Amino acid sequence: MRSAKIRLYVEHPLAEGQTVPLTREQAHYLFGVMRQGAGAAVLLFNGRDGEWLAEVAEAGKRGGALRVLRQTAPLRRPPDLWLLFAPIKKARTDFIVEKAAELGAARICPVQTEFTNSERIRRDRLQAHAVEAAEQCGGTYVPEVAELQKLDRVLAEWDATRRILFCDEALAGPSSALAGVGGSDAPWAILIGPEGGFSDAERARLAALSHARAVSLGPRILRADTAAVAAMTLWQQALGDWR
Amino acid sequence: MRSAKIRLYVEHPLAEGQTVPLTREQAHYLFGVMRQGAGAAVLLFNGRDGEWLAEVAEAGKRGGALRVLRQTAPLRRPPDLWLLFAPIKKARTDFIVEKAAELGAARICPVQTEFTNSERIRRDRLQAHAVEAAEQCGGTYVPEVAELQKLDRVLAEWDATRRILFCDEALAGPSSALAGVGGSDAPWAILIGPEGGFSDAERARLAALSHARAVSLGPRILRADTAAVAAMTLWQQALGDWR
Repeated sequence: MRSAKIRLYVEHPLAEGQTVPLTREQAHYLFGVMRQGAGAAVLLFNGRDGEWLAEVAEAGKRGGALRVLRQTAPLRRPPDLWLLFAPIKKARTDFIVEKAAELGAARICPVQTEFTNSERIRRDRLQAHAVEAAEQCGGTYVPEVAELQKLDRVLAEWDATRRILFCDEALAGPSSALAGVGGSDAPWAILIGPEGGFSDAERARLAALSHARAVSLGPRILRADTAAVAAMTLWQQALGDWR
Repeated sequence: MRSAKIRLYVEHPLAEGQTVPLTREQAHYLFGVMRQGAGAAVLLFNGRDGEWLAEVAEAGKRGGALRVLRQTAPLRRPPDLWLLFAPIKKARTDFIVEKAAELGAARICPVQTEFTNSERIRRDRLQAHAVEAAEQCGGTYVPEVAELQKLDRVLAEWDATRRILFCDEALAGPSSALAGVGGSDAPWAILIGPEGGFSDAERARLAALSHARAVSLGPRILRADTAAVAAMTLWQQALGDWR
C-alpha cells in the first residue's frame, strides 16, 4: 500500500477512474509548496463520497489533474448536531469553526445576539477554515457554515423537533442532566452566547422553550471559544458518536 | 456596591487596609490603556488570598498604588489536576495554557516526548498567559507553568498515587470508562501527546503503568489543542468540580 499523507478537499465527484482537475491554488500547494510531481499519491474527499486514493496525472504551474484509484474510507457523517454561536474576535471565531469541524458538527451557524458586536462575517473564509480542519484531521465530511442570522429570527423559525442545548451561567443545570435525553439520532443544536452573555430577554425566551435545555460548564467563567469546545465534548460523549 | 470590572493579578499579600504597589506595566494598563484614575475600583487576586476590592490610591505614569478595601470572593482552588502536554506551534501552545487555566488545572507541565519538535519553551511567557486567563475569567487561582521536562524522566520520577489519563487513538477505551474512577480528591494528571502521536516505546510504557488509563476522544482525529480541552472537560465532568 502506498502511503499518501496529503489530503485534499475537492468539489468534484469521486469514483474509480475519475479525472479530477486541480484549481490554481491546489496546484500551487501540491507542486509548489509540497514539491509533489507526477505519480505522487494524494488522498481526496468531497464531503459526499468518502475518501479516495488518487495519483497526480498531470502537474503544471497553474493547474493539473489527479486520477482517482480506489476508495480508502467510506463517508463518515457526524451526528445531526448544529453549532450556533455568536461571532467574537476574528482569531477566536476562526478557532470555533475549526474546532466544530474537528469535533463533529454537521452544520455551523453564526448567530447575532443582542450583545454581539459583529454585524458581518466572512462566510467564505470561515468555510475555508472548516475545509482545512477536515483535511488536517482525517475527516470525510465538511460542515457547512451558514450565513449570519439574528438569533431572534432563528428561534422564531425553529423546528422544535431539534433540541437546543445552551450554555449560560445564569440558567445552568448540572452537565450530567444531558445523559439519556433524546435518542442517538435525534437532531440537536448547541447554542453558545457572546462574550457579554445573553440579554435578559434572550434568557427568558430560551428558558421558556420546551425543546431547550441549559447545562453548566463548571464553576469558572469560560470564554466563548472554550465553552463551544467543552459543550460539544459533553454532547458527543452523552449523545453523539463518542459513546 | 460599586462595580469593578478590571481584575488584576498581583504578587503582593492581600488583606483589608493593605497598600499594593503597581508595576510599571500595571500602571500603564490601568491609567494609560483603561483610563482609570484615583478612586477607581479594581479587583485584585494573588492566587492565595481570594479576590479583593481595591481602589486606586495613587496614579502615576510609571507606577501607583492601590488600597485594599474588602474581600469579594474566597480562594477557589481547582481540583488537583495537572495537565501534561507536548508543546506544539506557538499559538496553539499559548492556547493550551490559556484553556488549562480556564478549565481548572492546578499545574501545567510541558513535556518533551520523542516526537516533540520544541526543545525549549518560554516559561515566563506561558505563565503570563495563565495569569491573563485567570484575570479574564474570574479565577482566583493561577496554575503554575512548570519548566519543560523529558516525558521519560517525568514518568520515571512519578508518584503513582497520582493517576494519569492519557489520550491516544491507538490505545483508547470508551470515555465513559472514566466514571467512578478514584475519589473526588484523588490527584490526577492528563497527558496529551504531540501532533505526531506517542512513539511505540512511549505507548508501551504508558500501557504498562497500572496508574495510567487511556480514553477515547471520539472517531475523528483531534489536534493536540482540541484534545487538551476535550480531555479536561471529560475529566472535570466525571471526577472534578463540574459535577
